[in-house]
Amino acid sequence: MSLEIDAAVFDVFGTLTDWRSSVTEELAEIGGRAGLHADWAAVTDAWRRRYRPVLGRVVAGELPWQPLDALHRIMLDEVLPGFGLDALGEPERAELVRAWHRLRPWPDAGPGLELLHDSPVITGTLSNGGVGLLARLTKQAGLRFDCVLSAELARSYKPAPQVYLTAAELLEVEPGRLLMVACHPDDLEAAAKAGLRTAFIPRPLEWGPAAAPADPPAGVDLVAEDVVTLAGLLRGRG
Amino acid sequence: MSLEIDAAVFDVFGTLTDWRSSVTEELAEIGGRAGLHADWAAVTDAWRRRYRPVLGRVVAGELPWQPLDALHRIMLDEVLPGFGLDALGEPERAELVRAWHRLRPWPDAGPGLELLHDSPVITGTLSNGGVGLLARLTKQAGLRFDCVLSAELARSYKPAPQVYLTAAELLEVEPGRLLMVACHPDDLEAAAKAGLRTAFIPRPLEWGPAAAPADPPAGVDLVAEDVVTLAGLLRGRG
Repeated sequence: MSLEIDAAVFDVFGTLTDWRSSVTEELAEIGGRAGLHADWAAVTDAWRRRYRPVLGRVVAGELPWQPLDALHRIMLDEVLPGFGLDALGEPERAELVRAWHRLRPWPDAGPGLELLHDSPVITGTLSNGGVGLLARLTKQAGLRFDCVLSAELARSYKPAPQVYLTAAELLEVEPGRLLMVACHPDDLEAAAKAGLRTAFIPRPLEWGPAAAPADPPAGVDLVAEDVVTLAGLLRGRG
Repeated sequence: MSLEIDAAVFDVFGTLTDWRSSVTEELAEIGGRAGLHADWAAVTDAWRRRYRPVLGRVVAGELPWQPLDALHRIMLDEVLPGFGLDALGEPERAELVRAWHRLRPWPDAGPGLELLHDSPVITGTLSNGGVGLLARLTKQAGLRFDCVLSAELARSYKPAPQVYLTAAELLEVEPGRLLMVACHPDDLEAAAKAGLRTAFIPRPLEWGPAAAPADPPAGVDLVAEDVVTLAGLLRGRG
């Protein structure tokens, strides 16, 4: 199998970072400090489940484009009452939105990205998180990239095709020589439709140990166990 | 003196990299391979002297915005006849444009940026080079940044104010908490006018040993001998 690429861009929430345990921990800490109690993992899951529908409304033009932080705040405000957490104050809510800037990486993500940094492949994020969020997140998580690319630069959100095509244009690479790496089949399907190559990394624990793991999408170019394995495959082929 | 900043963005051509010796070397190699002879440093200087006027025409709206690679090519084509280098072929000209993707860093740039990466300050490029150019240049030169920002993201060129303001917006920092670092007084003057803080690093050899060095602009917030010194000053204050 031949896969000639010049650059690889990575999904971040889920593919490189464990948003579920990170956000649950911050909810427990910040909520606990405010004297509140809840099933914090369930709050995290409910928050995250609002993500795709709300971003979908932006992609469909039903909501104006706005930074992910603003959308995260809207989703949080919608979710809290259902858990009896209306009492959570303004500064706590703002701090929780910033929990998404401080996600913990999966253990293979940092070492795998270092390996790729030492290869000829140009690496970047390609996330729905904004540029500022991604710069902070990758810095504190020790995730080394050659550049930070965001859906923000296309003023849209994945899976809109212009997000993938803007990344290729900014990197000055042909879409067919740009690899999208993600654990979400719909992200990879949209990238493939825009002409990119695709690599699937399973993250069976993304939604916790009880959730059913995702299968790789049909037609994916590469499946790798983790980022270190992916780096080995790309370096071998590079 | 107090200088509270959240992020620092760096000029690249001149401030972090020695474009003159790098491009002169590539001209000598590529021109020599084509059997041509010239004062290659003079060709480099003439090429670079076209830079500000041509970018100024884009900022003034007299030329449509286009990637820096395209402008570098226009400038090169204008310069070559004056040196009797009309014979230089199409592939050689294209390769020379890419010489600006492979510039050598000044020796303090890499170590200084590593120090800043280990501080709370978010670092980025802020160059007239495009995102793809900057990703390649910083990767091969070992210049570590938390993100790559370019005038391209404002579809303009420095010293247009929207270039500086777009950087602050993407980083989600107040302009007054963003530091522009450069060896060019006009870059810093424009950044200050847009509300940024400014740091001057002298690069007396930018135009070769015979050129007069630039003075720091009036009102600059910080003057540092090199990037390592700057990192020490910012970490001390951070």
